[in-house]
Formats: sequence, structure tokens, C-alpha cells
Amino acid sequence: MTATLPLPAQRPCMVGILGGMGPAAGADFVRLFVEACTRRMEALGIPVRDQAYPEHWLAQVPIPDRTAALGDRTPGAQQPAEPMAQATGRLVALGVQAMAIACNTAHAWHGELQQRFPQLKVLHGMREVAAALAASGDLRVGLLATQGSYDTGLYQAALADQGVACVLPLPHEREQLMQGIYAGVKAGDYALARSRFAAVAQALREREGLSSLIMGCTEIPLALDETAAGTRLVNPSQVLAEALARHAYAGMQAVAKVEAMACA
Amino acid sequence: MTATLPLPAQRPCMVGILGGMGPAAGADFVRLFVEACTRRMEALGIPVRDQAYPEHWLAQVPIPDRTAALGDRTPGAQQPAEPMAQATGRLVALGVQAMAIACNTAHAWHGELQQRFPQLKVLHGMREVAAALAASGDLRVGLLATQGSYDTGLYQAALADQGVACVLPLPHEREQLMQGIYAGVKAGDYALARSRFAAVAQALREREGLSSLIMGCTEIPLALDETAAGTRLVNPSQVLAEALARHAYAGMQAVAKVEAMACA
Repeated sequence: MTATLPLPAQRPCMVGILGGMGPAAGADFVRLFVEACTRRMEALGIPVRDQAYPEHWLAQVPIPDRTAALGDRTPGAQQPAEPMAQATGRLVALGVQAMAIACNTAHAWHGELQQRFPQLKVLHGMREVAAALAASGDLRVGLLATQGSYDTGLYQAALADQGVACVLPLPHEREQLMQGIYAGVKAGDYALARSRFAAVAQALREREGLSSLIMGCTEIPLALDETAAGTRLVNPSQVLAEALARHAYAGMQAVAKVEAMACA
Repeated sequence: MTATLPLPAQRPCMVGILGGMGPAAGADFVRLFVEACTRRMEALGIPVRDQAYPEHWLAQVPIPDRTAALGDRTPGAQQPAEPMAQATGRLVALGVQAMAIACNTAHAWHGELQQRFPQLKVLHGMREVAAALAASGDLRVGLLATQGSYDTGLYQAALADQGVACVLPLPHEREQLMQGIYAGVKAGDYALARSRFAAVAQALREREGLSSLIMGCTEIPLALDETAAGTRLVNPSQVLAEALARHAYAGMQAVAKVEAMACA
């Protein structure tokens, strides 16, 4: 019976990570992706060794500030779309079949990128997070993000699609988050970042009675943990890294299933 | 006076990281490189922001096992040289000017790679470590590494060149290290890795009276810290990441010097 099935891929497929937004978050995304691949291999019964990981390339390229660009849509050097597309094109030329964007705010250009590279699967972080929350029955969450992310409404829309209510911080709390992201993590001051992120998380928990918060900017998990926040924290980078690992091993899953069928 | 000097680079130069050996170590190398860049910018007085980092690409490609290949030099699919060269060629095509190899044992093919890509600066991890130890006056160190690394004698030669004495573990201790690397980190069992690495570190400290150990395999720092080892630990990935950051900002350093001269 197995002989009539199409030949499954012998290797996981090649994937890419578009990073540099910021670079510390891009590096952390690779770590999360490698860990997710290890778990995927264990789940699929593939012996874990260096050569069993998917080939993956990380592009850490200088991309203009995403939140600033969303506030000023005049074309020019400050727009992220073109450098994001250039780096993506180079990943596609290398042979990448699926890609994750290691920046929440940059998902404002997800549709444009996906349209420009139809042969590439560009994963969508917010949709992956919303689906994971709905699957776990977590139907009311707070959102910690950049001003740019709040303005695009990407998380709000993806969560609404899955029936998950999304609570936003007050304007002065959003300002605190921006300080933690820019004057904190992006400038290398992690103590400042931690204090700003923790203050907003605690305020949201006390005022709204929230038990789950989405860390909707890749810089936030680098300086916030559940002890400091006092709530469960959802790390979209982890959710997205797991989705990318699932894509990479999709063909191998078929192998495992075929072999299971053959054995049954 | 500044007008007669050649125009310095406005951006740090583009660099690459050859990883996948193993992938967790490659991801960790990027983290160390980003941290080293942050320190470099602070030292040079460059404001730290996403766009001020050097463009860098990480290639995590499947490379045959390095130690196994050193034990069997017959040509064929198990040899790392060709896949290492292919990934390096792709990094060069992307525009990378300097590259680090995120694997100690793979430095056995450093000379071959450097010869094949003369336009690329391929940094040499062991030489960077030896120079850093000599500069800090640490003239007698122990070496934790793979059997392949011991056999190539790369660390021993680089350390001897700098007048640093190198103490090796006994055969049964080397076997413990290989277990920690392969059955431990590369197979995702960090507890096993930690116990094997710590046992050898403690034995070396007690028998040889060593106060410094080189973690001469990229998997070792992922499961060993100074508390468990009871000695100072030298992380070659950190030394090499700092060397790569220095290369990336070499042109910017010139800018800072020129500006300092202009101000003086």
C-alpha cells in the first residue's frame, strides 16, 4: 500500500527567519525554533541529531523602524516594505519554502510580502497565537505591544476571528511599554525594560482581572517573566517558532504516518 | 586633515555565521554576537538601535559529523568539507565579508575554506581564544573538547603559538565529555550533559590544580556554568563572537577615530 503513495520528503523542508527587528529578538527566535524542532523530532520518533534539523537561514537585516513607518506612510527610505521584500527574496533564492517574521509590528506588511512571493508560505504570527489561545480555551487576554501594533489592529482582528476578547492597556501604560521596548531592550537597558513591562502587566492584572497576557512585541519576552508579571504570559515567538517547526517537518510527519500505516 | 583620508564605511560590514553544528550552538552564537555588537557600539559611541547592527546571516545547514569524519578521511558523503564550502559560498554570494564558524571541531577545515574563498575573512576561533588568554596572562589552561578536536591538535597548536600551556583530560574523561556532547546536548538531554561536563571539570581542577578551562566545543557552554565547574570557564563562542563584532565595526571604528582626531 505504501508503494502507491507519493514519495515523501526524506528531509524536513528548508525554512527562513526574517529578523533584525530587533536583532536580539531574531537570535532568540532561532533558539525557540531549534527547541521546537527538537520537540517535533521527539514527537515524530525521529532520532535527534545535528543533521536531522531542517536547514534554516536567519536574515538579520537593517529594516527601518516599523512603528515609526506606520505613523508616516509617505513613501521613502523610512518604509520597511522594500528591505523586508529584498531579504525575503534572498531567502527564497536560497531555497526557503516557509518563513517566519521575527517581529510583531512588521506583520503589517505580511499581506504585501505573501502576495509578492506566492511560492513561499509566510506564516502569520497573530493568527497562530489566536488559534493557539482559542484551542486552549483562553478567551480573554491582555495585549502588550508597540503603539504601531495597536494601531494596525492585527492582534485585535486575529483574536476576534477566533472569538478571543482582547483587552488593551491605557494610553499612559502604552507609553510605558514603548519606553521599555525602545529605551530598554533596543538600547540594551534590560533593567529599565523589566520595570516598565512589569508595571503595565501588574496594572492590567489588577484592573482587568486578567490571567493571561500576550507579549505582542518580540522585545518583551527578553525582559519579562511570569514572576515579574504575576500572570501567565503567551510568547508569540514561541507559538510562531512551533508553527515554523511544524511546517518544516510536515513531510516527515507524512513519513511517520506512512510507516505507522505500514506497521499497522 | 580628515578630508584627505579615504571615505570610511557608513555602515558596519556584513558578516556571516556558519552554523548547524549543532543548531542550538549556532543560535547561541547569534545571541553572543548581538550582545558583542551592543558592547561594540557602546564602546564606539554609536547609538544602539536596530538599524545600527551589522547585517548578518546565519546559515544552519546539515553538515556531516565532524569528529566522525576526522576518524575516517575516505572521501564521500560523510565529509563536512563540501557542504561547509557550499554554505560559505552562499554566504559570500549574499555579500558577507567576514565569517565565523560556530563549531570548534569544524575548524579542522578552516584552512581549506579560507583558501577556497580568499575574498572572505574566515575567523579562526582557536587563534582568537589563544590570543585572548595570552593577553589576560592566563598561561595554563585545561581543554574540554570533542575527541575530534583533541585529535586535530588545533587548540594545542594555537595555544603553544601564544605560549599558553594546554592540559588535556584523561581518556576516560574524554569519553565522558563525548557522552555529554552527543547523548546530552545534541540529543536534547541537558541534565546528562551537565553531569558529565561538571564531573570532568572538577576532576581536572582537583588533579591539575587548574583555575581556567576552555569549553572547546560549542555544545559545552549550553550545559555547563562556572558554579558547576568550580573553575573559570572560557567560552570560545563568546571570544569568537567578539572578534566577529570587532570585524563588523572595523570601518566604524575608523569613523570614530577620525571624528576624535577632528575634535582634538
